[in-house]
Amino acid sequence: MANIVSYTFEQYCDRVTEFHGHLAPGMLVGGYMVDLALHNLPKDILFDVICETPACLPDAIQLLTPCSVGNQWLRVIDVGRYAATFYNKYTGDGIRVYIDIDKLTRWPAIKDWYLKLKPKKQQDRQQIFDQIKEAGTQICGLETIKVSSEFLTRPDKTVAVCPICHESYRSEDGEICPACKEGCLPYRVVAKTSSAGS
Amino acid sequence: MANIVSYTFEQYCDRVTEFHGHLAPGMLVGGYMVDLALHNLPKDILFDVICETPACLPDAIQLLTPCSVGNQWLRVIDVGRYAATFYNKYTGDGIRVYIDIDKLTRWPAIKDWYLKLKPKKQQDRQQIFDQIKEAGTQICGLETIKVSSEFLTRPDKTVAVCPICHESYRSEDGEICPACKEGCLPYRVVAKTSSAGS
Repeated sequence: MANIVSYTFEQYCDRVTEFHGHLAPGMLVGGYMVDLALHNLPKDILFDVICETPACLPDAIQLLTPCSVGNQWLRVIDVGRYAATFYNKYTGDGIRVYIDIDKLTRWPAIKDWYLKLKPKKQQDRQQIFDQIKEAGTQICGLETIKVSSEFLTRPDKTVAVCPICHESYRSEDGEICPACKEGCLPYRVVAKTSSAGS
Repeated sequence: MANIVSYTFEQYCDRVTEFHGHLAPGMLVGGYMVDLALHNLPKDILFDVICETPACLPDAIQLLTPCSVGNQWLRVIDVGRYAATFYNKYTGDGIRVYIDIDKLTRWPAIKDWYLKLKPKKQQDRQQIFDQIKEAGTQICGLETIKVSSEFLTRPDKTVAVCPICHESYRSEDGEICPACKEGCLPYRVVAKTSSAGS
């Protein structure tokens, strides 16, 4: 069994269970995708990652690379594709790894799971895992990409205080913060709580 | 020195360095915010989190709770506010923790850092850390919130194959995938690579 980056298969599964909560098929596939990406990236470069889905794959990237959501070397741009782009953070040169659905024909259990061709209850979970282990990186496609220079440059943010919520936000977002302006958050405040700061 | 969830201060700093790459002030503040949130949330509930910034705070949440971006118990809705909402995933009842800028007056180094009132080079990093340790959760505000029932329900996604890129995506997004429809990804494909699947 091939290693997944610096882990044996079993070690990787343990790390997944610990960080992700359970051993999802997407985390296994994601492990092989990251492994393939790192093997096709020049060594000794500083790289950033764009992940095209929030499902599973960001956790494989966070477990196997220095990139995390919070350090912002990993950014999720959710277009719902199971794919990620790894690129030199200074030049933008990089590679994109994705699931090549043409290659899934050889692995019918993976195909049924990945394209949701069968209801979950009719899928054989062990068979999916076995086929993912067997297939490894063989279900992946790889593209050479170039990230736009505008995206590589991150100007220092300046901070403003919103006159409505009285919290700080990026001043480039305008006179009031996006949350107060657009009402884009799915909750309402019921009460201020006095237990803070105790 | 108060603990940060289940870690001593030093243990938490080690975990931060390992996962986040470096000990950022935002990760320390984030640790105290998560600690405060968990102390004000009922025990033994299953909770999800909405984080209002991608900067640092998501990593504190991922280190200190079972919620990660990839398992989707943590979702980042980026409005640029340093705040997060922890809520019962079935009822939507929960709490929101944020930085209360009125409380920063007592901790001028935190205030200068948080509101970027001084250029980075003029800030005393050690003083920022010392004040954050001293302040702990005292710089936080807390609100009782209710997450909308529409947001709590996640219908099973169905999958389509995009006729342009030939990759899978959420069929609810329309006839072609968002990446092909909106061109919202900041890279261009230079070449298909043949080394995949080896």
